[in-house]
Parts: sequence; C-alpha cells; structure tokens
Amino acid sequence: MILTVTLNAALDVTYRVEALNAGTTHRVRDVHTRPGGKGVNVADVLTQLGEPVHATGLAGPELNLPDFVPIAGPSRRTTTVLSTQDDSATLFNEPGPVISAGEWAAFRTHFDTLARDAQVIVLSGSLPPGLPADAYADLIRRAPAPVILDTDGEPLRHGLTARPALVKPNIDELARLLGRIPDLPADCAALGVPVAATLGADGALLTTPDGTWHGQPPRVLSGNPTGAGDAFTAAFARGIATGTPWPAILADAIALSAAAVNTPTAGAYDEATYREFTDLIQVKEA
Amino acid sequence: MILTVTLNAALDVTYRVEALNAGTTHRVRDVHTRPGGKGVNVADVLTQLGEPVHATGLAGPELNLPDFVPIAGPSRRTTTVLSTQDDSATLFNEPGPVISAGEWAAFRTHFDTLARDAQVIVLSGSLPPGLPADAYADLIRRAPAPVILDTDGEPLRHGLTARPALVKPNIDELARLLGRIPDLPADCAALGVPVAATLGADGALLTTPDGTWHGQPPRVLSGNPTGAGDAFTAAFARGIATGTPWPAILADAIALSAAAVNTPTAGAYDEATYREFTDLIQVKEA
Repeated sequence: MILTVTLNAALDVTYRVEALNAGTTHRVRDVHTRPGGKGVNVADVLTQLGEPVHATGLAGPELNLPDFVPIAGPSRRTTTVLSTQDDSATLFNEPGPVISAGEWAAFRTHFDTLARDAQVIVLSGSLPPGLPADAYADLIRRAPAPVILDTDGEPLRHGLTARPALVKPNIDELARLLGRIPDLPADCAALGVPVAATLGADGALLTTPDGTWHGQPPRVLSGNPTGAGDAFTAAFARGIATGTPWPAILADAIALSAAAVNTPTAGAYDEATYREFTDLIQVKEA
Repeated sequence: MILTVTLNAALDVTYRVEALNAGTTHRVRDVHTRPGGKGVNVADVLTQLGEPVHATGLAGPELNLPDFVPIAGPSRRTTTVLSTQDDSATLFNEPGPVISAGEWAAFRTHFDTLARDAQVIVLSGSLPPGLPADAYADLIRRAPAPVILDTDGEPLRHGLTARPALVKPNIDELARLLGRIPDLPADCAALGVPVAATLGADGALLTTPDGTWHGQPPRVLSGNPTGAGDAFTAAFARGIATGTPWPAILADAIALSAAAVNTPTAGAYDEATYREFTDLIQVKEA
C-alpha cells in the first residue's frame, strides 16, 4: 500500500471562463469542485492506475476526506480559472487555516499507525500555517518506509536533512532552494538524495547514486498543469513500491504526467494519452 | 423604510494578490468573505447612512441572511481578485443554483408582506437560473411603492414594461438593451421612465419627465468598483424616499459612488471621501 500525506488539503474549485482579462468581470460558465491538495491528487491518480493507496492528512470537515485528521478551521480553497480561449490556467491558492499543536500531535500518532502498512510514503505540498518548517523532516524520520518528498522552500530544505528516498522539485523550486539558477545535473546530484526534477517543456531529470537520466515527451501538451506534477509523483511512488528500475520509472512518470495535463481536473489522467506516450518517451543517460 | 431585494444573493469573496498574471499561480495574501449581492450592498450602504432599510431576497442557509427566503441549492460565490500592484479588480461570478417554482412562489408572498411598509423598493442584480425573465416586472406590478430597478439584459427589458420609478443602467447595460452604442441623452429619455445612467469616468446622466441633468466627480478614483453602482442606487433610494429634488439626488449619488470605490469591499463607503466630494460634484442641466 502507498500512503499519501496532504497536510494542507484544499477544496479545489475549477472555473471555466471564455477568456481571462485582468481588471474585468467574468461570468463563470461552470463550476467544478473536488477535495484536493497534492497528496489527494497523487492518491487519485494511483487509484485510477489500480494501485492500493491510502490518503491521509489534515482537513476541515467540509472536505469529507475519510482517514484525515479533522481540524477546526475551514479548509482552504484553491481556485483554477480555465480560459476556453487560450487553454490557459490561472490559479489562486488560499493560505489555509492555522493548525494547532494538538491537531499536529494527533496527526503524528495517526501517521505512525498508517505508516506501518506502507511500502512507500508520499509527502506532498505546502505546510499549513502553524506547523513547524521541519514537519516533513519529522515525518521522514518516523517513517518505516521510503519517503517521496514533494514540497518547496524551507519545508524542502529541512526535509532534505532527513534524507528521503526521493525529492521531486520543479525547476522553480530548485532555483529557490539554491538561491540561483540551477546548474544541471550537478546541483541535483549534490543534494545527496535521489532527485526527480521536472523541467517543464524540457522534460525531466533524474539523479541517483546509480546514475543520471533525462527524459522528454515526444510533444508538449497544453491544458491544465495542476496535477501533472502529482501524476509524475504517483508514477515514482508506484515504481519505487514495485522495485522498477530508475530509467523505466522516469519514462513512466513523464508519460503519466503528460496524460494528466490532458485532463480538465487534477487527480486524473487521460488513458489514451498515457497509452500513446508510454512507448514514445525517450530516456537517456545524462 | 427602504426595501432591497436580492434574488441572486452571493457569498462575496475578496482575494488580495500582489499582481494578477493570467496563466500563473497566485498565493492569496488574505481572504475576506461577506454575504453579498447587489441589493445586500445597497442595504449595507443605507445602513451606514443611517437610513431604515430591510434586505430580502433568496439565499442559501450558509449566507446567514435573516429575512431572506431559503433556497435548497448552495448560494453562489462571487470572487474579486484585488491586485496590490495596480489596484485593479478582477471578478469571477458563479451562475448560482436553480430556483424552484415553490421557492419563487414563497418569495412573492414574503415580498407582498414586506413591501406594505416600504417607501421605496430596490430590485438589484441578475436573476438566478430558474426564474422567469419577467420576475422583476411581476414584482414591480405587485409593489405598492416606487421601485428602482438595477438589472441587465432581458430582466431589464421586461422590467421596463412594468414602468418602475427609476432604472439605473450603466453604459454597457444601456448598449446591450439598445443593441448599439447609446445616443445620449435621447436614448435614455426614450425609455419612458426616469433613467439614472452611470457613465464611468464621464460621471452620470439623469433623464426624467422634469428635466435632464449630467453630473461629474471632480476626479476619478481608482480602487474596488464593486458596489460603487450599488452606493449610487442607495443614494437614489434615499432621495426618492425623502422627496429630494432630482439634481440633488444625482449629485449625492455621484459623491456616494465615488466614496464607495475608495473602500476595499462592496456595501461600504469612505466617510471622508463622501464628505469631501459632496460639495464638489458639478451637476448641470443637459
């Protein structure tokens, strides 16, 4: 079983508008809502893949997420505005409610119980206000299974000190971590743990003690980027759980990520695109 | 007592972001929510002015609006994204839930009771899905007091046939009503009822059987335009209720509207701006 953790769960709201013009009023054509957050998206993708998965985290009661530790404050919303005209996505992420020390303590106890049955644990997304910056580092140290960490800023910096099995930064997160434009692959290799870095149109780079690989999709798809990174993470969680070789995991992650861009909401992928891309991804030693 | 009617009430959400860039992700700095909708805003402004006012309409239970007739579906949200960088406001308006025939019948009965004590009735905003396009015309015909109608499109066209005491279109709403660029003041005068048309930076135009006036603020303020039109309407409601001469109402409405632009949320105005502008508005016969 793969365990995903979402400490900053959200109600994901998707608005479709004709075109987004700053400073004007938009009539929203349709409204779609789902419980979200990066770890929830990873779990949804794994479910679609047929993998046994368990999603946990912290969430307000309105999200109706079973096995999440309840918090008092209302959960945050993330709103994605999709423009029909140019297929662009514009996101607005609320900060979220402040987590109390008691809620965090309750979560750690719950985590210890669930983690016992996990083959791989995925820690995804930002930390809500109130949690210490080393919250992920703490969970990584308690975890009895390999941990994939997908976060940003100080939580990523602290998390690296606890040596997760893999980190999954995108190029902007890498630049923020380093404080400069990354020098690839050297900067990833220097992090001391396996790194799967997503590079946008340039594909993805994987550095490990066993080798370094780069992969690229045959073409870049436009659509909803939310959740593409989470599909990428889902592929790594499955690959690590099943003992798949690194370059094969990387190819699978790029295909699944491209197939997720092709769907209107996060936490899902387009099966036809996934099948098509699975045979077309080029992965080479870098 | 002034009665305001909001058939398409909403939870008004205001997000503050650094700058709005389409196609990117925004961290929302702060989130402000209030029960809103145009008639609620008009009532809030009248309350701040110290005028006796009663707000009614149709609303979901989560809006906590007493004296509104409850509906089953969750109320819609309107989200205003304020950019700190350029003071611009970008709005996203959800369509809202479908109103049942029973809910509409319950509202009309409730309206008949409340309208008995009203000196002026204000009907504001769009009609929610499920209501007939002549819903406002129906209310105007039942109303025992003068009615101000502030709406758009078909509800405005139907409403005019019931001869309200005043309509308050903006220039875009006038253009949609006519199907072409308005010829002012002739097109307003031809509507057959008093018309207070807001013209953005060009101030406002009032056509009545007693005369035609144009007014202009001494300077145009930037800020949150949501609710500026509702403050304008509030001034007309008070002016008609108190029997104030038309040109004095117009001057007051322009001052109050400018003072509302100067506040971060709808339904409020800046007292200092209102005092300053009250003596500076130029109203001339047109």
